Amino acid sequence: MPYVNIRITREGVTAEQKQALIEGATELLVRVLNKNPATTFVIIDEVETDNWGVAGQNVTSLRRKAKS
Amino acid sequence: MPYVNIRITREGVTAEQKQALIEGATELLVRVLNKNPATTFVIIDEVETDNWGVAGQNVTSLRRKAKS
Amino acid sequence: MPYVNIRITREGVTAEQKQALIEGATELLVRVLNKNPATTFVIIDEVETDNWGVAGQNVTSLRRKAKS
Amino acid sequence: MPYVNIRITREGVTAEQKQALIEGATELLVRVLNKNPATTFVIIDEVETDNWGVAGQNVTSLRRKAKS
Amino acid sequence: MPYVNIRITREGVTAEQKQALIEGATELLVRVLNKNPATTFVIIDEVETDNWGVAGQNVTSLRRKAKS
Amino acid sequence: MPYVNIRITREGVTAEQKQALIEGATELLVRVLNKNPATTFVIIDEVETDNWGVAGQNVTSLRRKAKS
Repeated sequence: MPYVNIRITREGVTAEQKQALIEGATELLVRVLNKNPATTFVIIDEVETDNWGVAGQNVTSLRRKAKS
Repeated sequence: MPYVNIRITREGVTAEQKQALIEGATELLVRVLNKNPATTFVIIDEVETDNWGVAGQNVTSLRRKAKS
Repeated sequence: MPYVNIRITREGVTAEQKQALIEGATELLVRVLNKNPATTFVIIDEVETDNWGVAGQNVTSLRRKAKS
Repeated sequence: MPYVNIRITREGVTAEQKQALIEGATELLVRVLNKNPATTFVIIDEVETDNWGVAGQNVTSLRRKAKS
Repeated sequence: MPYVNIRITREGVTAEQKQALIEGATELLVRVLNKNPATTFVIIDEVETDNWGVAGQNVTSLRRKAKS
Repeated sequence: MPYVNIRITREGVTAEQKQALIEGATELLVRVLNKNPATTFVIIDEVETDNWGVAGQNVTSLRRKAKS
């Protein structure tokens, strides 16, 4: 009965991509630990780029610099 | 000083229902562990059905199948 | 399919008390939101008192002051 | 490679304040534990006041009472 | 810069299995969302079976019943 | 009433360092958002190096390579 929480920045991820994450994470737990998929939860949190920081800077700024 | 995090799918839960969850979780911690309600936090996260997977499928699909 | 995470300090909570928390949280989700208990997860995290702070002080210190 | 998750109520926090939290939390980990800022994550979750409870009441009610 | 948190019961998972989860989750984020592995975190939490409940019962009890 | 969760690897962090993290995180929330320290929680999770992955490798391996 695993619980997988995937946190990513909210940057246009599609429902298909999110479904692929759900499938992939579930298969991973089945393959490696023989877990029952029926009680495997995968929850994806999409976080605004203003709310995610790396190296002391928010991702909004990091993306802007990467483009310029 | 407990911290309770309740994660549910975002499917029209009302403010009254959320208040009932907050009250119920707080009372549970007081009753079972004699915790001080003044420093008991309850945080409810409502998660889009596209972002919650069970058995390798997102809840959007599961709800659609349940209806058909 | 709710997920409930209860975080408390590690201070001698018994298996019976933890079972009471699991039952109570599950019943709460069934009662308030009509959730299916079979896919309701409750996870209890017990945190060392050195690792939990309130008001800028760890709980180890707060307990010591409360006793003296 | 620390991970810091700051959960606050959604009450008009600005992008500048969120950036200050990101910087401050990163500096804290560098100063106290000599962590590498390049792999220090800070994620801020803003939670609706209906979804956050203290002392068995949601913060929406608590704010209303504080004003009256 | 994704963050993946895998929560499982503490039931003799080996370091090799945990490494397989770390690799698999990282590859999943690279494959589906083209994320940079260098800033992809995977954290595994192993939870005592007394502290994990499903269907209102702790996993310690569920395992015992499954055996008998 | 903020909640701050700091997750770090378990590598000999002292109670004094943990207290410094608790104080620093509390002061940060007071300074930036004028939060009440009395209802500011800081919880530190120390994670085994086998259970934390970056770039697809667990931290146990990364530390060994850094030394050699």
